[in-house]
Amino acid sequence: MTTGATLPPPPETVLALDAHDPLASLRGRFHLPGGVIYLDGNSLGPLPHAARRRLVEVIEDEWGNGLIRSWNSAGWIELPQRIGDKIAHLIGAQPGEVVVADSTSINLFKALAGGLALRPGRRVIVSEHENFPTDLYIAQGLTALLDGRHELRLAEAYAIAQAIADDTAVVLLTHVNYRTGRMHDLAALTQCAHERGALVIWDLAHSTGAVPVDLNGAGADFAIGCGYKYLNGGPGAPAFIFVAHRHQASFRQPLSGWLGHAQPFAFEGSYRPAGGIARALCGTPPVLSLAALECGVDIALEAPMPVLRAKSLALTDLFIALVEQRCAGHGLRLITPREHNQRGSQVCFAHPGAFPIIQALIARGVIGDFRPPDILRFGFAPLYLRYADVWDAAHILADVLDAHTWDRPELWQRTKVT
Amino acid sequence: MTTGATLPPPPETVLALDAHDPLASLRGRFHLPGGVIYLDGNSLGPLPHAARRRLVEVIEDEWGNGLIRSWNSAGWIELPQRIGDKIAHLIGAQPGEVVVADSTSINLFKALAGGLALRPGRRVIVSEHENFPTDLYIAQGLTALLDGRHELRLAEAYAIAQAIADDTAVVLLTHVNYRTGRMHDLAALTQCAHERGALVIWDLAHSTGAVPVDLNGAGADFAIGCGYKYLNGGPGAPAFIFVAHRHQASFRQPLSGWLGHAQPFAFEGSYRPAGGIARALCGTPPVLSLAALECGVDIALEAPMPVLRAKSLALTDLFIALVEQRCAGHGLRLITPREHNQRGSQVCFAHPGAFPIIQALIARGVIGDFRPPDILRFGFAPLYLRYADVWDAAHILADVLDAHTWDRPELWQRTKVT
Repeated sequence: MTTGATLPPPPETVLALDAHDPLASLRGRFHLPGGVIYLDGNSLGPLPHAARRRLVEVIEDEWGNGLIRSWNSAGWIELPQRIGDKIAHLIGAQPGEVVVADSTSINLFKALAGGLALRPGRRVIVSEHENFPTDLYIAQGLTALLDGRHELRLAEAYAIAQAIADDTAVVLLTHVNYRTGRMHDLAALTQCAHERGALVIWDLAHSTGAVPVDLNGAGADFAIGCGYKYLNGGPGAPAFIFVAHRHQASFRQPLSGWLGHAQPFAFEGSYRPAGGIARALCGTPPVLSLAALECGVDIALEAPMPVLRAKSLALTDLFIALVEQRCAGHGLRLITPREHNQRGSQVCFAHPGAFPIIQALIARGVIGDFRPPDILRFGFAPLYLRYADVWDAAHILADVLDAHTWDRPELWQRTKVT
Repeated sequence: MTTGATLPPPPETVLALDAHDPLASLRGRFHLPGGVIYLDGNSLGPLPHAARRRLVEVIEDEWGNGLIRSWNSAGWIELPQRIGDKIAHLIGAQPGEVVVADSTSINLFKALAGGLALRPGRRVIVSEHENFPTDLYIAQGLTALLDGRHELRLAEAYAIAQAIADDTAVVLLTHVNYRTGRMHDLAALTQCAHERGALVIWDLAHSTGAVPVDLNGAGADFAIGCGYKYLNGGPGAPAFIFVAHRHQASFRQPLSGWLGHAQPFAFEGSYRPAGGIARALCGTPPVLSLAALECGVDIALEAPMPVLRAKSLALTDLFIALVEQRCAGHGLRLITPREHNQRGSQVCFAHPGAFPIIQALIARGVIGDFRPPDILRFGFAPLYLRYADVWDAAHILADVLDAHTWDRPELWQRTKVT
């Protein structure tokens, strides 16, 4: 740990936090390369050691030796539902309400098409201006396909509730904003939508495995989420979809591929949806990527959510405090809410030199993300980050800021960032 | 090799065929477990040794050490187009016309929705009764979503041309039938559709890497295909989609996720499709499964297609001849065409005891497939099968048939199949 100016809390306190961290042992489950402080687990989580071992087994034994037989003998055919049931534990869902399939975008298409069909008299989809773009793109793609019969109504984060009206079929929201880290009140907005007769789809990409989610507690309708962020499922890991039990019998989604059929191997000529959540499946899943995902999910299941959440808030609180003291005067502007109940597991600052600052940080081994136009994004995954990492990251950020005049693009564009 | 009754050709000729097989060296590229004759590469191709090595590299170096940086430094972001360009070589397409993404079913949805949009005045989709069910299911899902404005018109294989009329928007056909091995005349049916103003989508699941396909020679519009059959890409490997260059500028597909955007990382609020084939992308691809697929495709690229096709026909001819001689009187009925220009790379027989016969064959190490209601399906992948394997498989099939009375279900249902 870098020693430096006295900062709240002092370094010995930070070390003590690590020494008493109830999640400390989970860090050893991951391969974390030396010289790196990884604050980008909300883009791609690190490699679980178990995933490396498991993948060798899947490749050599199951694919190599088992060949086609492994669909049954190794249980490949059950993976989407087995892993879905595990993810259900992380998001307040029941077994049989979650299945792993396709990408987050594809699953959103299913949920949105299925949700609109359950509200045939209504024509409005409410979402947020600052929603993750792919969510808006998918809504645009679906409404265009439906020949302009639906309207996508976008509101600012604070005005979502007011935008939901009696004409609203579906409310489509991302729980934790990808750019700001702001977290919506899932229960309150779900209730608000239901009071007006609308259904809600929650995108849990930046939530699952990082913040508490209680879908059934909130009476949620649909949710989707990502396997490769806080679930540490590997690059492009398959995504998941949640359909509340009460909607499953009437849920029809248009990506009606054979694995969503009641009897896929009967090869019937007409589609008959499977009885439960399996009707959200479409084509054959990428087994190698699925197998890796399960290993990441298994680690997340070991961390009690209240403990995980407490550590996440402590990490992000610490980072905010350190940066605000140590980097004062450099023009960083915190855009992540200070209020705990509005904060995900990331901290973001706006700065005109955000892009080159992130590049300089990466060169120093602190891996964060730039998000346009001017945002430095730092993700704090409580499963493997230490308080000491936060301390070091804040001090390296301060060093980087001290080294250049980052707020004058005409200067840094000519400066070699090292 | 089993020696037995004199059969055309004699065993020494079969051994000579292997000794002079110009593709013989490619067999060594695959892990083929001992004691197995694998006639199911059209369900799941075997493991290439290169895929095992490559996956360890992707897992340990790229994911483990490179983390998020590998999207650029390891070229993950280019994989869908890079592998697509390689597949293009196998199907008579140009670079920039093929991209790897999602599953075959999902890609069909894109192609069908995109194709219908290019023929707005027409309402009919023509397909085949015996098409692979998921293709029909997807067409059913899309037409239901479009509120009954389109009709799915199904014809028998021999009557496809007559079913295409001036009301036909899109003709959706699988080149090689999954159950019978019958191969359509891709060029003739494409021309027929075009003469009537319709577009064609070719499902190449059982073609790519096994039979000659010349999409551009035929003036084809769209195609989709599978990565885990004859491309040996691994269980659930991602699929591909072909959009002819001339259609790309006007091709709009509703699964408009961020990776199909002109500038995915600009995070714009509105979808703008990428300029070329990338607009067929949707969400983040499963990198582990993609990386394995590339290794399989690379092997296929080493086999000149005329040589591959000649061997495929020789293997299937040999199997038909051996089975018809050696298994005569057992009631097997060949349902794969004898005509070379109508045959894919598989041989299928109908038999009332097809299911238990396949189980008995698998127990003897000959892995084929049962397809309902009564079909024994054997795939012949010329990249790794030997003529001697065909000889052995036919003789083991004969032994199995000799051992029981398979055509009386009331008997075999009480017989323990060993």
